[in-house]
Amino acid sequence: MTTYRAAVAGATGYAGGELLRLLLGHPQIEIGAVTAAKSAGSRLGEHHPHLVPLADRRVEPTDAEHLAGHDIVFLALPHGASGEIAEQLGDEVLVVDCAADHRLVDGNKWQQYYGSTYHGSWPYGLPELPGQREKLTGTKRIAVPGCNPTASTLALLPAVAAGLITVDDIVVVLATGPSGAGKKLAVTYLAAEIMGSATPYQVGGIHRHTPEMEQNLIACGAADPKVSFTPMLVPMARGILATCTAKLADPTITADDVYAVYQRAYADEQFVHLLPQGSWPQTQATVGANTAHVQATVDPHTGRLVAIAAIDNLAKGTAGGAIQCTNIALGLDEATGLTTIGVAP
Amino acid sequence: MTTYRAAVAGATGYAGGELLRLLLGHPQIEIGAVTAAKSAGSRLGEHHPHLVPLADRRVEPTDAEHLAGHDIVFLALPHGASGEIAEQLGDEVLVVDCAADHRLVDGNKWQQYYGSTYHGSWPYGLPELPGQREKLTGTKRIAVPGCNPTASTLALLPAVAAGLITVDDIVVVLATGPSGAGKKLAVTYLAAEIMGSATPYQVGGIHRHTPEMEQNLIACGAADPKVSFTPMLVPMARGILATCTAKLADPTITADDVYAVYQRAYADEQFVHLLPQGSWPQTQATVGANTAHVQATVDPHTGRLVAIAAIDNLAKGTAGGAIQCTNIALGLDEATGLTTIGVAP
Amino acid sequence: MTTYRAAVAGATGYAGGELLRLLLGHPQIEIGAVTAAKSAGSRLGEHHPHLVPLADRRVEPTDAEHLAGHDIVFLALPHGASGEIAEQLGDEVLVVDCAADHRLVDGNKWQQYYGSTYHGSWPYGLPELPGQREKLTGTKRIAVPGCNPTASTLALLPAVAAGLITVDDIVVVLATGPSGAGKKLAVTYLAAEIMGSATPYQVGGIHRHTPEMEQNLIACGAADPKVSFTPMLVPMARGILATCTAKLADPTITADDVYAVYQRAYADEQFVHLLPQGSWPQTQATVGANTAHVQATVDPHTGRLVAIAAIDNLAKGTAGGAIQCTNIALGLDEATGLTTIGVAP
Amino acid sequence: MTTYRAAVAGATGYAGGELLRLLLGHPQIEIGAVTAAKSAGSRLGEHHPHLVPLADRRVEPTDAEHLAGHDIVFLALPHGASGEIAEQLGDEVLVVDCAADHRLVDGNKWQQYYGSTYHGSWPYGLPELPGQREKLTGTKRIAVPGCNPTASTLALLPAVAAGLITVDDIVVVLATGPSGAGKKLAVTYLAAEIMGSATPYQVGGIHRHTPEMEQNLIACGAADPKVSFTPMLVPMARGILATCTAKLADPTITADDVYAVYQRAYADEQFVHLLPQGSWPQTQATVGANTAHVQATVDPHTGRLVAIAAIDNLAKGTAGGAIQCTNIALGLDEATGLTTIGVAP
Repeated sequence: MTTYRAAVAGATGYAGGELLRLLLGHPQIEIGAVTAAKSAGSRLGEHHPHLVPLADRRVEPTDAEHLAGHDIVFLALPHGASGEIAEQLGDEVLVVDCAADHRLVDGNKWQQYYGSTYHGSWPYGLPELPGQREKLTGTKRIAVPGCNPTASTLALLPAVAAGLITVDDIVVVLATGPSGAGKKLAVTYLAAEIMGSATPYQVGGIHRHTPEMEQNLIACGAADPKVSFTPMLVPMARGILATCTAKLADPTITADDVYAVYQRAYADEQFVHLLPQGSWPQTQATVGANTAHVQATVDPHTGRLVAIAAIDNLAKGTAGGAIQCTNIALGLDEATGLTTIGVAP
Repeated sequence: MTTYRAAVAGATGYAGGELLRLLLGHPQIEIGAVTAAKSAGSRLGEHHPHLVPLADRRVEPTDAEHLAGHDIVFLALPHGASGEIAEQLGDEVLVVDCAADHRLVDGNKWQQYYGSTYHGSWPYGLPELPGQREKLTGTKRIAVPGCNPTASTLALLPAVAAGLITVDDIVVVLATGPSGAGKKLAVTYLAAEIMGSATPYQVGGIHRHTPEMEQNLIACGAADPKVSFTPMLVPMARGILATCTAKLADPTITADDVYAVYQRAYADEQFVHLLPQGSWPQTQATVGANTAHVQATVDPHTGRLVAIAAIDNLAKGTAGGAIQCTNIALGLDEATGLTTIGVAP
Repeated sequence: MTTYRAAVAGATGYAGGELLRLLLGHPQIEIGAVTAAKSAGSRLGEHHPHLVPLADRRVEPTDAEHLAGHDIVFLALPHGASGEIAEQLGDEVLVVDCAADHRLVDGNKWQQYYGSTYHGSWPYGLPELPGQREKLTGTKRIAVPGCNPTASTLALLPAVAAGLITVDDIVVVLATGPSGAGKKLAVTYLAAEIMGSATPYQVGGIHRHTPEMEQNLIACGAADPKVSFTPMLVPMARGILATCTAKLADPTITADDVYAVYQRAYADEQFVHLLPQGSWPQTQATVGANTAHVQATVDPHTGRLVAIAAIDNLAKGTAGGAIQCTNIALGLDEATGLTTIGVAP
Repeated sequence: MTTYRAAVAGATGYAGGELLRLLLGHPQIEIGAVTAAKSAGSRLGEHHPHLVPLADRRVEPTDAEHLAGHDIVFLALPHGASGEIAEQLGDEVLVVDCAADHRLVDGNKWQQYYGSTYHGSWPYGLPELPGQREKLTGTKRIAVPGCNPTASTLALLPAVAAGLITVDDIVVVLATGPSGAGKKLAVTYLAAEIMGSATPYQVGGIHRHTPEMEQNLIACGAADPKVSFTPMLVPMARGILATCTAKLADPTITADDVYAVYQRAYADEQFVHLLPQGSWPQTQATVGANTAHVQATVDPHTGRLVAIAAIDNLAKGTAGGAIQCTNIALGLDEATGLTTIGVAP
């Protein structure tokens, strides 16, 4: 059994911690360097007391020197930092970027939404997209999707692919926990601000995940999708609940029709769990798992499809998705080191 | 200064507790009988340890006898129970029903969504609706709005009244805490289920608050509104965050236009707080207050208006709204005993 | 009715916000300058969206010039900052210091636990201590107690004063929410760290509140008290639950004896609510109120008294206590502008 | 590799769900019957949506017939129910009781604290107790410890075994989440009651875990231990933080002495993680893991040892501990199917 050696850059943050948590359970990847920009020299246990087997690991600086000599490099860095460091890594190393830097195929949209230097696009790490596994197999570069686009795309994919909805007026409203923002020190993310409160952010079409969602819907077959996206912060450490609605393409489409389409679409997807009709996703059920829980129905009153997905933003939404694609890239079983089972309650 | 005497039926639940909390601070209403169906004979302090001045009050049975002899009777009973008990109370007493029983003007919609005996409709207790204060002044019967319709209506009212949006395809996605369900004993409402989790419920046009929202939008001037409504439970004891979107009636409408309309609409409403442009509501800021925090903008990317309101479901969403309307009915200053100030963090 | 004008320094923090929230409801104090070190020039609404009536107030810099011309100056500054600024305020102004700077009567203990310049001690703002109201009446300087000492002292006071316990081996273990740390930007206080987690801090006799608790117990009549104090952070925005145990002075003392002593001790204290025997405090019941909920009993198995108090750390634990003492100092009714009623659930 | 077949009785509750979650990852135990008293006939997915691979399993009734034919029967039933059902299972089957029924060796204490029929005691499932692995090896009956005794015992064990403390006056104050109470339908456990609140319960020496803790301390070498135990409910779904203090046997014992003793005691325990000196346990770090995080020090001010342990009440505190002992009983590697890695944040 081949074993690969992986470095994790940005190891002290939440995404980095989740990568390490999952890699500790991966039978064919061993953990090499763990690096960080600011806390080089510290014990990893200070940052991630839950990762007992790595408690005494030293954190190294994030630079080309310390990332060299690995088969895989996971980048869990702030948006904008991955592009530069990736260019210093050789072509033979598998680079898995958890930031946004290489997601968008359209450089103009990158400019418009991110405003920094565009570093081009890499194969996009959502294997459930049509034809995407082929693009990921054998690749040396993977752009891990954003957590919100992952949830929204998995909620909408079957409906778009089957032409059940019109795509020019999709509404996505999404609840997410603060771990998606990492360990950013801002009043907004203080516990006293978030506990007992819900609040939207980046409202009005300005959230950077919007073009990424639309890019995904195009990959599902949509011609010119438009998504109205409103995220809100709610008091849970992990989890995303994406509520997606769109006009039915044909008012005679029934809830049973929709369910049948979703069943077919996800019959072979081990990391998408379509709930029994009438049951709706609960984010808690996905904690720690690489699973998206999905349900969809028709609102006959308004002629809209309502599709909802729950994921763990750090697992299927970031680190789990990253490892799923890494498995594909390396030619391993896609589920190696991953679980469909959540930790609840 | 006239003083009125009020009974609270259903005093041991969360809505009843909030009514009592607010009435304790009302200078012109004194608390008479506090009644409940199941826990008659117990101390009120067992149910509401936060209501220190009422700790030793005995809970009486909820029946016509114990509710008699008051100027005002607040009914905080399960849906379907108010209709019967209200009929046993005299015409001269002010009856304020916090349940749904007397909200819908269309008996068919009552049948369709509630399925029990229709008891007719009473003046609807949302004073911010056009012309509604006139209907409430001097009335002896008030139907307190549902908490979700209150939040959604206040988010959309100015846009609908000013014709900024098309009303046949409104999407409302709303986060709410579990206190709205009262002290209902079901696994769904256990702390271990709700903490760390978000989950939708009653998806697909079946939520009973849908016809009430549409009835309100008609009162704002909409011809035949259709609302796609999806609520979700999130881990906060109190609070509603309603995200409402709809197509702009005219694509040239700007965010500034929208804001100006909202400013004019709410200039004289002391219990609606329009935030400065760019700031978005946080439910925490409304806890305990009778205030709705509102913001609206345009998503130019999709041509939709996005309007968001936050309220405390027990305060402005139930007990605060009830007292605001009671003040109007009695000819008192509308703000008597109410505050715009939340308890945060 | 005389009206006083108060400045609040440190107005943008949690303690400052709670002072402003309570002062907005105080009929004899009007709010003058609101000041802060770093965010001078900003709107107060940015920091405290719940304080609607003050939303458009400008934040001024915290300096002697801006604090001048008020009858009262509330200092809600970090420990160590009050001493200096207080010296620049005149003797005729009432200065109420919410920080620790003027609490300890023993300069050596200050040095040992705080290590900075000692600024002397002021009348201590816990009116429930024996003889303390006399010391507060007419004073121009008030040292507001720490929130943990307030909770612990109110739990233990009657037992110490009546000699029910030996005081040389008191154990206090206390759960508290993160708002007590203010808006301090540290990973420890991020929502993702605190939600779903409990963790102790400053264990092993090093917490700065230890000497303050012991000073209070001496004021209750203890000769040479020793308190083993362990605080823990738990996921609630506000609230302290202090569990205090100590050996009974005499093993024949019963739970009924203890309860009778507590009843007598607190019979006239409007802000201490002794629960009925068998009921135990819930922090939720104290949110926003100036009330401590207290209960005590005997553990016959170990011969220890167990006394527990719940308070809102920002209300009775800081801002409420500050205003209670201000009322006493000014000769107003002690309860002016304060409530015993919590906001729950 | 031998494979064992296990039934789980009480499979729909939280302890049952956690047993199933862990068994799904156990390479040598396959899941047979899943049974419950009330919800026989339902899909397991209704109760545990996080257990995706078992979603379509039917729940069988809990009776001897359905539990027959397994190598192992895990009982996750309410206290008092295990005794009877266990008597109907053969001697050759390994019965693992997660309830209290077979924990106490002293029938009188059972009577005093539980008051129902005493069913005798079984080998106690805390392998870290001195000599306990020998008693568990090859056994056909295991009494899984209570979650609170597990946390408290692991905090105190080294200190007691090494004679560092006097044992006649141990104080344990412990924070726990509501999942320990299972899916019990009572107002106390509703989300709106628990979120944002801390409250003690069963105060004054009456908690049933007290005799169990003392029995464990005797097993560690204590002569006649007395524990004053106060638990409190705090708002986290999972987790226990046990703060334990006791007088040092000798005032010259230093923090370094204590730490050295703990290091030696736990050097070979893979499921007890002694943190570096100065770091204190965080319950979050143990979620889903079979690990206790432990730290201890001296409070020189009071001459007390302070020892603190964090566990996941459902994992190491119930289901994880159960499987650890099952492994020992079956002669498997003690860690089979278990992890030391928590899911955080």
